[in-house]
Amino acid sequence: MNQAVERPIILTGDRPTGQLHLGHFAGSLRTRVGLQDSHQQYLLLADTQALTDNADNPEKVQRNIIEVALDYLAVGIDPNKTTICIQSCLPALFELTSYYMNFVTVARLERNPTIKSEIQMRGFERDIPAGFLCYPVSQAADITAFKATIVPVGEDQIPMIEQTNEVVRRVNRQIGQNILPECQALLSNVGRLPGFDGKAKMSKSLGNTIVLNATDKDIKKAVNAMYTDPNHLRIEDPGQVEGNVVFTYLDAFDPNKEEVAELKAHYRRGGLGDGTVKKRLEAVLKELIEPIRERRNELAQDPTYVMDVLRDGTDKCRQITQQTLDEVKAGLGLFRF
Amino acid sequence: MNQAVERPIILTGDRPTGQLHLGHFAGSLRTRVGLQDSHQQYLLLADTQALTDNADNPEKVQRNIIEVALDYLAVGIDPNKTTICIQSCLPALFELTSYYMNFVTVARLERNPTIKSEIQMRGFERDIPAGFLCYPVSQAADITAFKATIVPVGEDQIPMIEQTNEVVRRVNRQIGQNILPECQALLSNVGRLPGFDGKAKMSKSLGNTIVLNATDKDIKKAVNAMYTDPNHLRIEDPGQVEGNVVFTYLDAFDPNKEEVAELKAHYRRGGLGDGTVKKRLEAVLKELIEPIRERRNELAQDPTYVMDVLRDGTDKCRQITQQTLDEVKAGLGLFRF
Repeated sequence: MNQAVERPIILTGDRPTGQLHLGHFAGSLRTRVGLQDSHQQYLLLADTQALTDNADNPEKVQRNIIEVALDYLAVGIDPNKTTICIQSCLPALFELTSYYMNFVTVARLERNPTIKSEIQMRGFERDIPAGFLCYPVSQAADITAFKATIVPVGEDQIPMIEQTNEVVRRVNRQIGQNILPECQALLSNVGRLPGFDGKAKMSKSLGNTIVLNATDKDIKKAVNAMYTDPNHLRIEDPGQVEGNVVFTYLDAFDPNKEEVAELKAHYRRGGLGDGTVKKRLEAVLKELIEPIRERRNELAQDPTYVMDVLRDGTDKCRQITQQTLDEVKAGLGLFRF
Repeated sequence: MNQAVERPIILTGDRPTGQLHLGHFAGSLRTRVGLQDSHQQYLLLADTQALTDNADNPEKVQRNIIEVALDYLAVGIDPNKTTICIQSCLPALFELTSYYMNFVTVARLERNPTIKSEIQMRGFERDIPAGFLCYPVSQAADITAFKATIVPVGEDQIPMIEQTNEVVRRVNRQIGQNILPECQALLSNVGRLPGFDGKAKMSKSLGNTIVLNATDKDIKKAVNAMYTDPNHLRIEDPGQVEGNVVFTYLDAFDPNKEEVAELKAHYRRGGLGDGTVKKRLEAVLKELIEPIRERRNELAQDPTYVMDVLRDGTDKCRQITQQTLDEVKAGLGLFRF
C-alpha cells in the first residue's frame, strides 16, 4: 500500500445536475479511467457546490448523485482504484471553507474571471448569491482537503487553480509551515465537444446531447440530425470538415485515426456523401456506447452496490479531509477538544 | 426536565478577543445571570467569528476563550443553567452557514448597515475578507442552529436579527415547512457604558476599561482618572451630570438609586465636590468587583474545572446543532448517509 500513498493525488469531479453525456466522456471521463492506475484519484460529487445555483431545486441535485455515480462506474471508474465521495457528507470541507474565507477578499473574488463570466452567463448580476461568489474558496477547500497536487480542468478554470494556490500560500504563511501543497492544473488536450446540432454548448435542456445510456435508436436519431456542412448539397461537391460536427465526433471517438484522415480528404475534394460519413459515426458510437449502456443498466438494477460504493468512498474521504482540517486548525492555533 | 425544554431559548455570547470588563457587565453579563432561571440560555464563545478580522492573530482568540469563560463563571453564570460552548467546535454551524449563503445575495450583505459601519470602522474598504462580509450569515446559522427565539443585542445589531429572519423565511419556504423559528431582539435598556476617560468606546487598547478582576488599586486609579465635568472647578459651583462619567457609572452600578438621585441634584446646584462622588463610586465598584475577582482568581487556579465546563457545554451543543442541521438537510432534500 505504500506505493499507493506515493502516487500523485488528483481531485476532480462533477456537479450532479444531470446525467453525463458524450461531451463528458470525451473531455474528462476517458482521461480519468486512464489516470486511475498511476494516480491516487478522488472523484467528488459536488452537490453542495451545485446548490449554489440550484438552491430552489435540491431534489434534482440529489437524484443526479446516483445518476452520475452510475455514469462513473459504467465507463470504467474502478472504486478499488478511484475513490468516489459526496461533497455534502464531508463536514471538514465546510470548516476549511470558512477559515479560508478570512484569507480571501471580496474584491479578489469579484475579479475572478470564471466567476465574472458565470455571473454573466447565469444572469445573476447584483443578485449573485453569496455562496456563488464564494465558491472558488469552497473549491480551494475541496482541493486542499485532499492535498491534491493535480486538478484536471478546462482552460476557463485556471483562475480557480490560481485562487486555490493563493489560499494555500496565505494559510501556510500564517501557520508558518507548508501544511497545504500547491496544485497544478492538468489541462485537457481535447477541445470542448459541441452539441450534435452544432451549438458550442451541449446541454440536456437544449436537447443536443447523447447520454451514456443512449439506445441504438437514440444514437441513430442524433447522428441523423447532426449538423454537417450546410453548403454541401450534392455528393460530388467539395465539403467542409471544419465545424462539421460529424467529423468533430469522428475525431473524438473513432479509434482509427488514419481512416478518419482519409475520409476527411475525400469529403474535402468531393464525392463523399454525408450519409456515408454518418453511417460510420453511428457505428462508432454504437460500439462505444453499447458496453457502457449495458453496464449502466446492470448497475442501475443493483442500487445497494452503488450506495455501498458511495458510502465506503465517502467514509474514507471523511477521514482524509478531517485529518487535513485537524492540521489546519492546530496550525492556526484553534481551540480543540 | 420537560419544563426546561419549554423555556424560551436564548442565544448570546461574545467574541473572545479580550477579557470582559465593566461595560460587558452592565450591558450583558448582569442580564444573562438574571435570565438563566427563566430561559434556556446558550452562551457562544464566537472564536470562528473573531477570526474573521483576527486571522493573523489566532493565538489571541484561543487564549481569550478561557479568559471569557472565567469572566462568565465569575459573574455568576451557572453551567447547570446556562450552556457555554465554543463555536469552532460545532461543525454543524459551518454547514448551515454554507447552505444559508445560497439564500442571501452579495448585494444584500453589502447593504447591511452593521457590516457597512464595521467595514468603515476597521478600515477594510475594498479589501474586506469574504468571511467578514458573510458573517451575518454565520450569525444566522448560530441563532437558528439553537432554534433560539430571543437574541439579546444592542440597537446597532438589529439588522443582524432582520437578516437572520430573512434567512429563516427563505429556508422555511424552500423546505415548505417551518423548521426554523424566527427570532426577536432583546434590546438592552442600558446604554453603552463609556470608557472611564469619557470616550464612547471602551477598549483594552485605549486603556480605559475596568476589567472584572481589577484590584482595589486598579479601581482607585481608574476612578481617580475618571472624566467628570471639566467646567466644575470649585466645589461650590453647579456641576453637570450629563456626560459626567462618574454619574454614568453610579447610574449603572450603585444599587441605591434614590441616593444617586439626591447626589445628582446636589451636584447640579453646587456644593458637592468630584472627590466625594468619586469616593462613593470607588466604594460601589470595589464592592461589586471584589466577589467577582475572588471567584475568578479561584477558578483560574482550577483550569480542569473550566475546561470540563467548556467540554460538557460544547458536547451538548454539538448534538443540538447537529440535530437542526439534520432537519435542514433532510428538508432541503440533501443526500444523507
